Amino acid sequence: MTSHTEYLTITTPTRYEIRDITGEVERVCRTAKLHDGFVLVSTMHITSSIFVNDHESGLWSDIMTWLEELAPAGEDYRHHLTGEDNADAHLKRMLLGHQVLVPVTGGALDLGPWERVHYGEFDGRRPKRIVLKAFGIGAAA
Amino acid sequence: MTSHTEYLTITTPTRYEIRDITGEVERVCRTAKLHDGFVLVSTMHITSSIFVNDHESGLWSDIMTWLEELAPAGEDYRHHLTGEDNADAHLKRMLLGHQVLVPVTGGALDLGPWERVHYGEFDGRRPKRIVLKAFGIGAAA
Amino acid sequence: MTSHTEYLTITTPTRYEIRDITGEVERVCRTAKLHDGFVLVSTMHITSSIFVNDHESGLWSDIMTWLEELAPAGEDYRHHLTGEDNADAHLKRMLLGHQVLVPVTGGALDLGPWERVHYGEFDGRRPKRIVLKAFGIGAAA
Repeated sequence: MTSHTEYLTITTPTRYEIRDITGEVERVCRTAKLHDGFVLVSTMHITSSIFVNDHESGLWSDIMTWLEELAPAGEDYRHHLTGEDNADAHLKRMLLGHQVLVPVTGGALDLGPWERVHYGEFDGRRPKRIVLKAFGIGAAA
Repeated sequence: MTSHTEYLTITTPTRYEIRDITGEVERVCRTAKLHDGFVLVSTMHITSSIFVNDHESGLWSDIMTWLEELAPAGEDYRHHLTGEDNADAHLKRMLLGHQVLVPVTGGALDLGPWERVHYGEFDGRRPKRIVLKAFGIGAAA
Repeated sequence: MTSHTEYLTITTPTRYEIRDITGEVERVCRTAKLHDGFVLVSTMHITSSIFVNDHESGLWSDIMTWLEELAPAGEDYRHHLTGEDNADAHLKRMLLGHQVLVPVTGGALDLGPWERVHYGEFDGRRPKRIVLKAFGIGAAA
């Protein structure tokens, strides 16, 4: 039984951004010497997402346009009575989800051919942390 | 390796409600004497949600208003041909999700500063159960 | 500690379909001789979903109608500039999610009375794979 936890910090230059972080998940799996189990990838902030989808910039653009339609910025949200202006980010992040569990089999991420782990930022321009916890059966020494 | 399972029952006084249950997750983590691993928090009913977001009543109100826009009650749903009247609750619960996996590191919930675990009820006024399973490496005796 | 991984292939006859796969999850749990832990059920394709909801054909129809309203096919998506025509499937799958973690307690799936695990297909008519990983404490021999 092995467990290994890392934290990744991302500061996006813009308010909204989608970024492929699969390489980081692979790196944590290797560092943990995990043979079989999982890597939990979970954003620690409530205005960003972790999700699995295609690494394709047109689709990323479609996702952002679609989220803006379903959970628009600039509306008269009650959350803004607290002085915040990011209620849309809290809602957008719910639509994509905030964590994924990546299975690990035979020492490698057990993903389909087009599955990639993404970070979705909806209130960026400041440091955000992601926890990555590799958990399971370690490789024999 | 340790595993500990508890069930929490919630009966809300109204049909729709959001409630912070992070204290219950912390309690289960302590009772399990979990040092490193996870607590799965999963509603056992199909008209309620478990999700992570901000503990802020204005945002909770925004979430309920928004869910009502995206998955309105009172529509002419086919599910209602069975005699049920809660198809909207089945849809609302999909938008927020029905389970979260809370990482545990160093004996404590490994959450970001504003992350709180919430129960979202969309067809309340009767008892609903939530399963909480703490799983991982126990603290040394 | 035990871990057991299987892959399920589904080819739906139509583009859109919802199918109850709880029996497959139960079978994998039994084959793994899992006493306490989890079965991760995760689609390996980015145009399909795994979700928990009611086994009721009227509700399944409502879900498909609702997804079509929130993420319609046939729109002018940028993803289609790549030659694809399935951007709606990539979006629909986000709304329902792509994986669930089914708790196992006392050797059986620890589900509520109406919880059933479903596969949601939004771009079918070709083989799609699902990974099922049972993980936890095995039954005593």
